[in-house]
Amino acid sequence: LLSLSRSISQSSTDSYSSAASYTDSSDDETSPRDKQQKNSKGNADFCIKNIKQADFGRREIEIAEQEMPALMALRKRAQGEKPLAGAKIVGCTHITAQTAVLMETLSALGAQCRWAACNIYSTQNEVAAALAEGGFSVFAWKGESEDDFWWCIDRCVNVEGWQPNMILDDGGDLTHWIYKKYPNMFKKIKGIVEESVTGVHRLYQLSKAGKLCVPAMNVNDSVTKQKFDNLYCCRESILDGLKRTTDVMFGGKQVVVCGYGEVGKGCSAALKAMGSIVYVTEIDPICALQACMDGFRLVKLNEVIRQVDIVITCTGNKNVVVREYMDRMKNGCIVCNMGHSNTEIDVASLRTPELTWERVRSQVDHVIWPDGKRIVLLAEGRLLNLSCSTVPTFVLSITATTQALALIELYNAPEGRYKQDVYLLPKKMGMIALCCLSSIKRSVLCNKPSI
Amino acid sequence: LLSLSRSISQSSTDSYSSAASYTDSSDDETSPRDKQQKNSKGNADFCIKNIKQADFGRREIEIAEQEMPALMALRKRAQGEKPLAGAKIVGCTHITAQTAVLMETLSALGAQCRWAACNIYSTQNEVAAALAEGGFSVFAWKGESEDDFWWCIDRCVNVEGWQPNMILDDGGDLTHWIYKKYPNMFKKIKGIVEESVTGVHRLYQLSKAGKLCVPAMNVNDSVTKQKFDNLYCCRESILDGLKRTTDVMFGGKQVVVCGYGEVGKGCSAALKAMGSIVYVTEIDPICALQACMDGFRLVKLNEVIRQVDIVITCTGNKNVVVREYMDRMKNGCIVCNMGHSNTEIDVASLRTPELTWERVRSQVDHVIWPDGKRIVLLAEGRLLNLSCSTVPTFVLSITATTQALALIELYNAPEGRYKQDVYLLPKKMGMIALCCLSSIKRSVLCNKPSI
Amino acid sequence: LLSLSRSISQSSTDSYSSAASYTDSSDDETSPRDKQQKNSKGNADFCIKNIKQADFGRREIEIAEQEMPALMALRKRAQGEKPLAGAKIVGCTHITAQTAVLMETLSALGAQCRWAACNIYSTQNEVAAALAEGGFSVFAWKGESEDDFWWCIDRCVNVEGWQPNMILDDGGDLTHWIYKKYPNMFKKIKGIVEESVTGVHRLYQLSKAGKLCVPAMNVNDSVTKQKFDNLYCCRESILDGLKRTTDVMFGGKQVVVCGYGEVGKGCSAALKAMGSIVYVTEIDPICALQACMDGFRLVKLNEVIRQVDIVITCTGNKNVVVREYMDRMKNGCIVCNMGHSNTEIDVASLRTPELTWERVRSQVDHVIWPDGKRIVLLAEGRLLNLSCSTVPTFVLSITATTQALALIELYNAPEGRYKQDVYLLPKKMGMIALCCLSSIKRSVLCNKPSI
Amino acid sequence: LLSLSRSISQSSTDSYSSAASYTDSSDDETSPRDKQQKNSKGNADFCIKNIKQADFGRREIEIAEQEMPALMALRKRAQGEKPLAGAKIVGCTHITAQTAVLMETLSALGAQCRWAACNIYSTQNEVAAALAEGGFSVFAWKGESEDDFWWCIDRCVNVEGWQPNMILDDGGDLTHWIYKKYPNMFKKIKGIVEESVTGVHRLYQLSKAGKLCVPAMNVNDSVTKQKFDNLYCCRESILDGLKRTTDVMFGGKQVVVCGYGEVGKGCSAALKAMGSIVYVTEIDPICALQACMDGFRLVKLNEVIRQVDIVITCTGNKNVVVREYMDRMKNGCIVCNMGHSNTEIDVASLRTPELTWERVRSQVDHVIWPDGKRIVLLAEGRLLNLSCSTVPTFVLSITATTQALALIELYNAPEGRYKQDVYLLPKKMGMIALCCLSSIKRSVLCNKPSI
Repeated sequence: LLSLSRSISQSSTDSYSSAASYTDSSDDETSPRDKQQKNSKGNADFCIKNIKQADFGRREIEIAEQEMPALMALRKRAQGEKPLAGAKIVGCTHITAQTAVLMETLSALGAQCRWAACNIYSTQNEVAAALAEGGFSVFAWKGESEDDFWWCIDRCVNVEGWQPNMILDDGGDLTHWIYKKYPNMFKKIKGIVEESVTGVHRLYQLSKAGKLCVPAMNVNDSVTKQKFDNLYCCRESILDGLKRTTDVMFGGKQVVVCGYGEVGKGCSAALKAMGSIVYVTEIDPICALQACMDGFRLVKLNEVIRQVDIVITCTGNKNVVVREYMDRMKNGCIVCNMGHSNTEIDVASLRTPELTWERVRSQVDHVIWPDGKRIVLLAEGRLLNLSCSTVPTFVLSITATTQALALIELYNAPEGRYKQDVYLLPKKMGMIALCCLSSIKRSVLCNKPSI
Repeated sequence: LLSLSRSISQSSTDSYSSAASYTDSSDDETSPRDKQQKNSKGNADFCIKNIKQADFGRREIEIAEQEMPALMALRKRAQGEKPLAGAKIVGCTHITAQTAVLMETLSALGAQCRWAACNIYSTQNEVAAALAEGGFSVFAWKGESEDDFWWCIDRCVNVEGWQPNMILDDGGDLTHWIYKKYPNMFKKIKGIVEESVTGVHRLYQLSKAGKLCVPAMNVNDSVTKQKFDNLYCCRESILDGLKRTTDVMFGGKQVVVCGYGEVGKGCSAALKAMGSIVYVTEIDPICALQACMDGFRLVKLNEVIRQVDIVITCTGNKNVVVREYMDRMKNGCIVCNMGHSNTEIDVASLRTPELTWERVRSQVDHVIWPDGKRIVLLAEGRLLNLSCSTVPTFVLSITATTQALALIELYNAPEGRYKQDVYLLPKKMGMIALCCLSSIKRSVLCNKPSI
Repeated sequence: LLSLSRSISQSSTDSYSSAASYTDSSDDETSPRDKQQKNSKGNADFCIKNIKQADFGRREIEIAEQEMPALMALRKRAQGEKPLAGAKIVGCTHITAQTAVLMETLSALGAQCRWAACNIYSTQNEVAAALAEGGFSVFAWKGESEDDFWWCIDRCVNVEGWQPNMILDDGGDLTHWIYKKYPNMFKKIKGIVEESVTGVHRLYQLSKAGKLCVPAMNVNDSVTKQKFDNLYCCRESILDGLKRTTDVMFGGKQVVVCGYGEVGKGCSAALKAMGSIVYVTEIDPICALQACMDGFRLVKLNEVIRQVDIVITCTGNKNVVVREYMDRMKNGCIVCNMGHSNTEIDVASLRTPELTWERVRSQVDHVIWPDGKRIVLLAEGRLLNLSCSTVPTFVLSITATTQALALIELYNAPEGRYKQDVYLLPKKMGMIALCCLSSIKRSVLCNKPSI
Repeated sequence: LLSLSRSISQSSTDSYSSAASYTDSSDDETSPRDKQQKNSKGNADFCIKNIKQADFGRREIEIAEQEMPALMALRKRAQGEKPLAGAKIVGCTHITAQTAVLMETLSALGAQCRWAACNIYSTQNEVAAALAEGGFSVFAWKGESEDDFWWCIDRCVNVEGWQPNMILDDGGDLTHWIYKKYPNMFKKIKGIVEESVTGVHRLYQLSKAGKLCVPAMNVNDSVTKQKFDNLYCCRESILDGLKRTTDVMFGGKQVVVCGYGEVGKGCSAALKAMGSIVYVTEIDPICALQACMDGFRLVKLNEVIRQVDIVITCTGNKNVVVREYMDRMKNGCIVCNMGHSNTEIDVASLRTPELTWERVRSQVDHVIWPDGKRIVLLAEGRLLNLSCSTVPTFVLSITATTQALALIELYNAPEGRYKQDVYLLPKKMGMIALCCLSSIKRSVLCNKPSI
């Protein structure tokens, strides 16, 4: 039920918040649910790991603010108008510094917020502490059990004297819970903003079945997100993910990139720029010809599988790298996945008695053949960029800005503009998101066309 | 009425067919219409400059064949079937070596062809000679008068005992002529294949007015053409066009590219790769952010106009580079246009008494200010890549293959599949065109998906 | 006295050996000098943090072996000959997994080894444990005091019944100690191999003063090291260092690189490839013209200091980024050093009362101006790539192979070939080092010229 | 005896000076030696093709001045001092627009000049006309016989009442002539400036034999020339040369570059940037590892010879591409040379009865095998960039500035500073040359170091 696929892994988080994490590891093992904590103003309407980490968290939030100029600009502009005055938003997303910047922006725009985590591992405890200290009702910690997960969600919505009128969801679990437990709540809800592929899929199913009872906004498929999450973000995160896990030098390495969509284009360009020799596999003729024209040798995987040092999948298909190929890889070959699914590499086929698995570092397994050959499998075939690198704040900034604009749009839309259906963010709003991104760009873009 | 915008200029052609051109220059001035010429088999059903140039032209055609593997492959495959058996095609296109490869392919597939030029300047006389020598009824020469132009078209269609059943047009003039003079001919015509923007526009107007009386295929907007003519072709032709006209060294030069669509992307990438410092102007926020993320500094034109060495327009808009900007350019600044229209640079504004124009080479003017400052204007603001470089045969190959496939499709379509409307080439046919492009790609693409 | 400048910082190491480090943090605080430890074979001739970490260390060594094919190849070839049979090597270097591969190679070639650390922080405790478990006499741990440091060196050389005949040094401290305490030892010593700039400098001084009493080999200035440590290594480590510390997105960022030597070339190329807009400052005209021709805008620092997002120094000079410039940087500007010295950024000038320093992460300080503006200072102006990224094993492999070849050369040189002077590694040996690097390259390079 | 290797071919010149060339072709066939011509001031001390072409030539010179800012700056500065006052320079170089800018600069600095061509084909007749019209004693035309060649040189030096005191030579023929015919002239000659490899080689031989009787300056090996003529110039001219001769599209093509020195680096980088897939052959291990780290696959030529579309030699060795390889190339493969010698491609081996040669364009031969396969051989294996592209004025500007500075240095050196030996240009002068290159760079470089 849990959408683990988007989880920002424990390890990647660790390396960024060392101070906080060290504190964590010496922490007592008491469940947050069994603790009594209050913030410095005496407020106790939250449930997090340790309120004492608030200072660490505040610093992380301040750092994040530096790279989220769009939200900061939204805050400033709205000091007069408060376009979310009266909004009661219940949210269920990853709880990170960037989310905190979003929540504090929503609050500055007039909204009240209650928040749970959409993933049992992805909460940054110190950020949750900073939010609790700042007066937000946050129910989340790193390492929740499944029971904890639903308990937290329930604590967000099942409150005496407070009823949400907007939902911000990432994965659809919050929406699902309200449908199941408190269907009447939808009477007051003006709309749902949904972030993830999975959640959007559920909404379309509800809509098709005639059961969607409020308008919903799909912010996953917005132009900005697609373009930036994929091409530009992957161009950087493939390098980052590989370096952090394997410390490999890229120069002179032979790499095969499976698939030449936006993700494959980003990965190929980045590795080529670092001096790798990159081969591409592709079955779509347009993408294949693009790979050719971009200077990549188009191959079938089996032609190069014996010679490459790194294999990267980004096709969106299943079983692209099968056991037979892995049997033929050379010693030390690194195998990882940048595609959407975690089934591009047939990891299951490696769980056979004759192969030995050795966990050498967090997110890094050596799979060892009887003759001693080992391949280096990253993140067990899950998404490398989410598991082993960080998503740049700048990209998260686009996402968060888009979410904020979607909430404002749905909350303020005149009765009847949106029906009980799933909508894409109006293109105009996407433009605004882009224009907000930074002061340099704003000056260039938002004036009259001047060329 | 003539679509001069697509003309391949005399000068660019000259540099490629020096032998033939030298012959030309010593040629007598008699109009081809006043000459009596026969080919070596006694056939006289053509009108061209000089049948004696046939050998030169044959060589040019053979060179072109090397880079047109798709058409050559089509020829081979069709040796049995003859999918154009019975087709009587009247064509009106640029008459170049690549067109000759197309015509000889159509013939190999079973068609009979009669051909005129779509532009009064773009005919390669020696190629026309080779076609005439090979038995094709060609009516075209370089430097036709307007009267010649229509006379040639008329000679193609107005023949005793022969009536076309297919039209291949580039610019719509042939179609227009038949509509005007021989409307009854459409009874036997199975379809029109149209190459140019202008021609397609005319067809849509006819269709809208209910006057289109046969199906038409728009091959201008095919995926393959858009992608390749623009991005990949311009990436090479911007360098070629600038070098041939100005001999400028790119390394270290400051360049501003106006517009970051496909053409702008290609120009910017090429010049960056050669060591130029490239600035981009753009008003569309998505394209602007792409420029940013690709590492180009986004500017307004007036910010950099004083310092740049080269200005390239590719916006598709009018008056992007106005007189005021040209007044402020530095001495020696090169100004050229890669966009669709010839109005991006306000050339008219330079035709004032205080400025002196000096033609320093073919396609290159120095415009000189009273204080001695001169700017270097290329092709009088017309398309640089058509005027001052050559279009790679490989790209023309895609176009020609697409045209051939469109003719086959329309000619063989079962009654009723296509109505009296304008169609895009079915995507499947585009795929085939791509798959035909070369043996390497074919082996990779046309088998079962293998990744 | 300690050459701290080359230290691989604690933090960067942490992130790579999380398992081991976690154990560390829970470790007792007893000094290793006060502990009694034996390896599994009963050997106690070592002094390290914790012999129980040997398994973790072995795994790190095995991973390192994968990227050190040259040393592994040397091992194999020497199984018959043992070119270091009889060699007694005392070493003083960073104790890392790569050093362990070197030591085990030297041992396989016939040498006996005793080893200390050349830096009080850089020892990987678990690697030291694995070496001790494998029978090496290692005296080193992370976090030595200065007294510990010299005690460890002394334990390596001051042994009953064992006297070194070869020295491998990195920084010159070991050599210095023997000169000072055991000068007679030089009678049996055949040569010194020295890695660092500092150590080489000391050797030249000794040589000039007529006090160098054995031949010495300078492996710092070998062609291979210069080319690879600088250009190729920095191209990757600038990205890695910036990402790990700041998580910044490179696309669209404005960056100024101060200095366009090999390091500057690597940094500029990498950031340009990731979509940054890169400016370069340079005073040498040759390098400046190279920057121009490579497409970078040549500027003075003060022209761009207000607008850039990242400032990187790699000039080798002092006070390149002075307080005045930092006063004018924009909020959030990242400042770091990739040059040789740690004085390129005038960090001292930032330690004034009106500025607040905030340590936000390991190696990352925010320096905050009275008006709230903050700049992000990395590694306190020390070398970013050593402090905040890892040096790729592949590069260390070149260094280690060069050291091994230098030891073999000096140890086996016929009497009289090398005088009491400082030598560069013969070019032939550098070639061999390169040829050993990998099997692909070997097949291409080491056969007869074939082109 | 003639140094044909540096000749700028007729064809490449043609395409750039069409107006003038057209005039040529209609020219009478009288030898210039048999004509009586005077310039508009009645001066007849010159011998050129046609004084009437002076206006065309002046225009070419003015265009060249735009890209030769360094010489123009030298002119301005020297308006007061005249550092060449009293200098009588006899020169023997290619006579092009760029040389004209040099000569007019020398004149502005106070020198008198007499000039001949160093190559029988490379003279631009219209430029020679402009110089003659301007009062220079020029003896040169395109298409001299060998007898004409020596006659022209003799006319420069054998003058009543004028004796040279400086020599500027390119190839050593002028120097050779004076040695042979007028050895006494050397008594008054202060020095020789020599441009070419061949000429420098001759000077070293004279010096070794004790026969060099004046100081000589080798400007061929200056840092600036090496760096720019090779790397940056070739990066552009490989593309230009291939396009002009073959019109090939680079995107997706497979290319092998033989040799990875400066020339190979430039060619490889340019083609990679245009989307070609580039393989490299190299036997020097340092260069080979650079190729690897730059992302090129290192191969032996025979591994890829069957599959590549383009073969480029730049090794400096003989017989790199032998007949055996050409036998195995695929149909349409393009073969060309960018290296120093014209023996890298074994062209002689192609002159056998079973192969047919077909000249398809100027500088382009098809060599046809009995089975119909044809390879496309460019410039008969001579230097592609000199034969088939133009050398950018900017690069020639560096050369010309260096020559001017060398003349000034030698002419003004105090007695005794230079002996009867061959010298390199002092590094300081190289710096000045670079600093002069353009106003942008000057402002950055020539002020106090500022970083």
